[in-house]
Amino acid sequence: MSTTELIALDHFPLVKPGDDLCALILESAKKNNLSLHNGDVIVLAQKIVSKAENRYVDLKTITPSPAAIELAQKANKDPRAMEVLLGEAKEIIKTRTNVVIVEHNNGYVHANAGIDHSNIQQEDGKELLLLLPKDPDASATILRNRIKENTGIDINVIINDSFGRAFRNGVCGVCIGSAGVEVIDNKIGHQDLFGNILQITEIAIADEIAAAASLVMGQADEGRPVVVVRGLNLKTSDKGSNALLRKKEHDLFRQ
Amino acid sequence: MSTTELIALDHFPLVKPGDDLCALILESAKKNNLSLHNGDVIVLAQKIVSKAENRYVDLKTITPSPAAIELAQKANKDPRAMEVLLGEAKEIIKTRTNVVIVEHNNGYVHANAGIDHSNIQQEDGKELLLLLPKDPDASATILRNRIKENTGIDINVIINDSFGRAFRNGVCGVCIGSAGVEVIDNKIGHQDLFGNILQITEIAIADEIAAAASLVMGQADEGRPVVVVRGLNLKTSDKGSNALLRKKEHDLFRQ
Repeated sequence: MSTTELIALDHFPLVKPGDDLCALILESAKKNNLSLHNGDVIVLAQKIVSKAENRYVDLKTITPSPAAIELAQKANKDPRAMEVLLGEAKEIIKTRTNVVIVEHNNGYVHANAGIDHSNIQQEDGKELLLLLPKDPDASATILRNRIKENTGIDINVIINDSFGRAFRNGVCGVCIGSAGVEVIDNKIGHQDLFGNILQITEIAIADEIAAAASLVMGQADEGRPVVVVRGLNLKTSDKGSNALLRKKEHDLFRQ
Repeated sequence: MSTTELIALDHFPLVKPGDDLCALILESAKKNNLSLHNGDVIVLAQKIVSKAENRYVDLKTITPSPAAIELAQKANKDPRAMEVLLGEAKEIIKTRTNVVIVEHNNGYVHANAGIDHSNIQQEDGKELLLLLPKDPDASATILRNRIKENTGIDINVIINDSFGRAFRNGVCGVCIGSAGVEVIDNKIGHQDLFGNILQITEIAIADEIAAAASLVMGQADEGRPVVVVRGLNLKTSDKGSNALLRKKEHDLFRQ
């Protein structure tokens, strides 16, 4: 048998703006008696990356534009939150009561531009939202390099978030940023077991890893936002996560 | 730290029509020196369930209807294959060259009704396709019950397949049938770390498990179609996998 492990770090500290995620991860791994290995994939919940990068916005500082007010009326949402959302989005794709689906500036199609209210420590007199990291591939690369510098170990990094999907209920972990992992495993042209040539199999490996890690992170509980995936035999790439995003002109559901 | 394991059974035999999957799994587990535990999730690739249930269709026996001929012209596909597809589908959702997206009779929205040409042993004089299991929840339940009868152990079962997605490239493992697992983990009304009430978090746990298993099954290689997921603390349900399917009237991308 072949075993792949999803190892969640217990008792990970709450992350604050300016925190050094590399230092926190290495310290937490030590407390958990976990040594990192070459080829490990460290999956980080988006929220801790956003918090370390201080991607908070205080709604009390926001003045909604006419476009935000109009969108808020359509979606029955706070106009100030819609102003923040418009700043994060390239395009509004669908709107109805309580739902705004957008293309994020980084290219993901998802609800509410990934902006979150939950698991945020509110401060007196503020109404804080948390945006996605500005450039998650860059965040992942910095962490990968810093772990290499500090330990000599080559790890891969995936930043995950939970997205809703078309056609299916429930959210599922997906990759929004990566370093080291080839995010799509292209089997086109390979032979199957019986020697037939595979025509169309491109596997979204990084999304499957993101989903697997999400299983053990939990959702409401921010206590396990770092998961080490060990035992996969992955192709490597320095191209980040962009290949996961289908271009608008190729997407049947945007036409 | 907390570890969840994805354990792939090596050297699983090729599955033939009429094979007893319970017997094959118990025998393979024994050869792999793996004892099943209460609470394990056994994830099966759809293909071995379809093969055991003899869901083969020989294209040479199919006469296409006018509707199938018309669909084949639109999609640039074999009219006989489109006749088979129409038998498996409730509704054609999108068609363009080489792509037909349907709602399957079982409710999944996906390409080509899950009908597959790859990893199928062709027989002389036949052109075989393989359909999805007729009722994957029932297939999962039978296996779960038989393992209980034979071993006394309570396991859960998920049957997975790889689906393409709207907005993202690459296929990803999803659950098409289940027994024992509560497929959606509903956190609505729970408190987050800071005491805020969660509004909308329903997690597609069974799809995340299906994706995790898919990572270690591989795709072109049918040699590891059975994966045991061990260490998750799951809610149980006898309702099968239907809750994963968003009803047409609730889906923004079908309106």
